[in-house]
Amino acid sequence: MINKDSLTHHISQQFNAELEDVRSHLLAMGGLVEKQVNDAVTALIDADSGLAQQVREVDDQINQMERNIDEECLRILARRQPAASDLRLIISISKSVIDLERIGDEATKIAKRAILLTEEGESPRGYVEVRHIGEQVRKMVQEALDAFARFDADLALSVAQYDKTIDREYKTALRELVTYMMEDPRSISRVLNVIWALRSLERIGDHARNIAELVIYLVRGTDVRHLGLTRMQEEVQGDRGKDDSGV
Amino acid sequence: MINKDSLTHHISQQFNAELEDVRSHLLAMGGLVEKQVNDAVTALIDADSGLAQQVREVDDQINQMERNIDEECLRILARRQPAASDLRLIISISKSVIDLERIGDEATKIAKRAILLTEEGESPRGYVEVRHIGEQVRKMVQEALDAFARFDADLALSVAQYDKTIDREYKTALRELVTYMMEDPRSISRVLNVIWALRSLERIGDHARNIAELVIYLVRGTDVRHLGLTRMQEEVQGDRGKDDSGV
Repeated sequence: MINKDSLTHHISQQFNAELEDVRSHLLAMGGLVEKQVNDAVTALIDADSGLAQQVREVDDQINQMERNIDEECLRILARRQPAASDLRLIISISKSVIDLERIGDEATKIAKRAILLTEEGESPRGYVEVRHIGEQVRKMVQEALDAFARFDADLALSVAQYDKTIDREYKTALRELVTYMMEDPRSISRVLNVIWALRSLERIGDHARNIAELVIYLVRGTDVRHLGLTRMQEEVQGDRGKDDSGV
Repeated sequence: MINKDSLTHHISQQFNAELEDVRSHLLAMGGLVEKQVNDAVTALIDADSGLAQQVREVDDQINQMERNIDEECLRILARRQPAASDLRLIISISKSVIDLERIGDEATKIAKRAILLTEEGESPRGYVEVRHIGEQVRKMVQEALDAFARFDADLALSVAQYDKTIDREYKTALRELVTYMMEDPRSISRVLNVIWALRSLERIGDHARNIAELVIYLVRGTDVRHLGLTRMQEEVQGDRGKDDSGV
C-alpha cells in the first residue's frame, strides 16, 4: 500500500519533484474539468449560451493539458524507469488523463445542447433531473480527484459505488421523458436535447468511476476493473491489499 | 519512423519475443472485438436475441484480455525499461486496449438494444441505417487494427478521416428518425432503441479513430490527437515525420 509519504522517500530529489509535478498537473486538469462540468450544466439550466460557448472554448485548453501530462509521463518512463508504486503512479496518471479528457468532451457536448436549447426553444421537462444528476456527477469527479490527491482508496470506493445510483436515476429520468414525448410529440426535438445532456452526465459518472478504480489500483496494487462492487469492496476494505513489493 | 523490422533488431531475443507477444495479443483482442461489433449489428437486424445474448457473454472475455495485456505492458515497462520506439509501442498498445474494451462495451449496448427490440417489438425504421453505419464502423475497426499490425500510418490516416463520414451519416439518420417519431409517437420507445444503437456505432467510430491516431503516434512519433485532419495529414504525408532517436 502506498501513501503520500512514499513519494518523499526517493534518493533523487529531482525524481521526487517530477512525480509531484505530474501529479499536481493531473489535479489541476481535474479541477478545470470539474469546473467545465459545472459550467455546462449551469449553461443548460440558465439557457446561458455565452457560458456554453465559453465551455466549448476551454476544451482546447484541456486537450493541451492532456498532451502535456502525457509527455511528462513518457519522459519519466523513458528517463527514470520507475518501478513498483512509482510505475503504478505514472500508469494511473496516464490513464486518468484519458478519462478527464473525455469528461471534458462530454461537458462540451452538454454545452452544445445548451446552445441548441436556446435556439430551438427550451424543453418542457428535464431541467430538474439535469440539475440533480449534474450536481451528483460533478461531486463524483471532485471526490475521485480528492481520492487521487490523498491516496484514499475508501473514498475512491464510495465514488465507484455511487455510479450505480447515477445509472438508476438516469434510467428513471429517461423513462419519464420518453413518456412525456409520447404525450407531446411536438416537443420531441427539444426534449431529446435534454436526454442527450443526461446521457453525457451519465457517461461522466462512468469516467469518474474509472478514475476511482485507478486510485484503488494505485493505492492497493489491484486491478479492480470489471470485478463488481462486492469484490471491489473486499479488495479495498479486506486484508488482502497487496504490499508495495511488486508491480 | 519505425516499421516491422525495427522489432527484430533487439539484442535480447527474449525482449523481442515479449514485444511480439503483447502486440499479437492486442491484435487478437481486436479481432474478437471486431467480431462483437459485427455480431451485435447482425443480432439487432435479424432480431436474434440468442446471438445478442452471446455478445453480452463474450464481453467478459474481452475485459479479461484487457487486464492481461495491461499486465504484460506493465511487466515490460518494469523489467525492460523500453525507450524510443519500443516505449511508444508499449504506450500505444496500453492505450489501444482501452479503446478496444470500450468498443466491446458499445457492442454489448447494441446487443442489449437488440434484445429490447425483440421484447418491445421491432422499430418501424432505422434498420437500413444500422446495417450501413454498422458495416462501415466495423471496417474502421478492422482497418485501424490492420494499420497497427502493419505500422501503416497512411491507412491509419484514412481511418481517422473516415470518422467524419460516419458522424455525418449518423446525424442524417438521427434527423430522419426524430421526424418519424413526431409523426408516429407510439413508436418512440422502439425507435429510441435504434437511435441508441446508432449512437453506439458512432462512438465505435470515435474509438477506431483513437486507435488510428495511436498508430500514427507509434509510426511517426507525433501526437496527432486534437490536431484536426489537415494537420494530421501533413504529419503523415509530409516530410516532417520524426525519426526514431527520441521519445
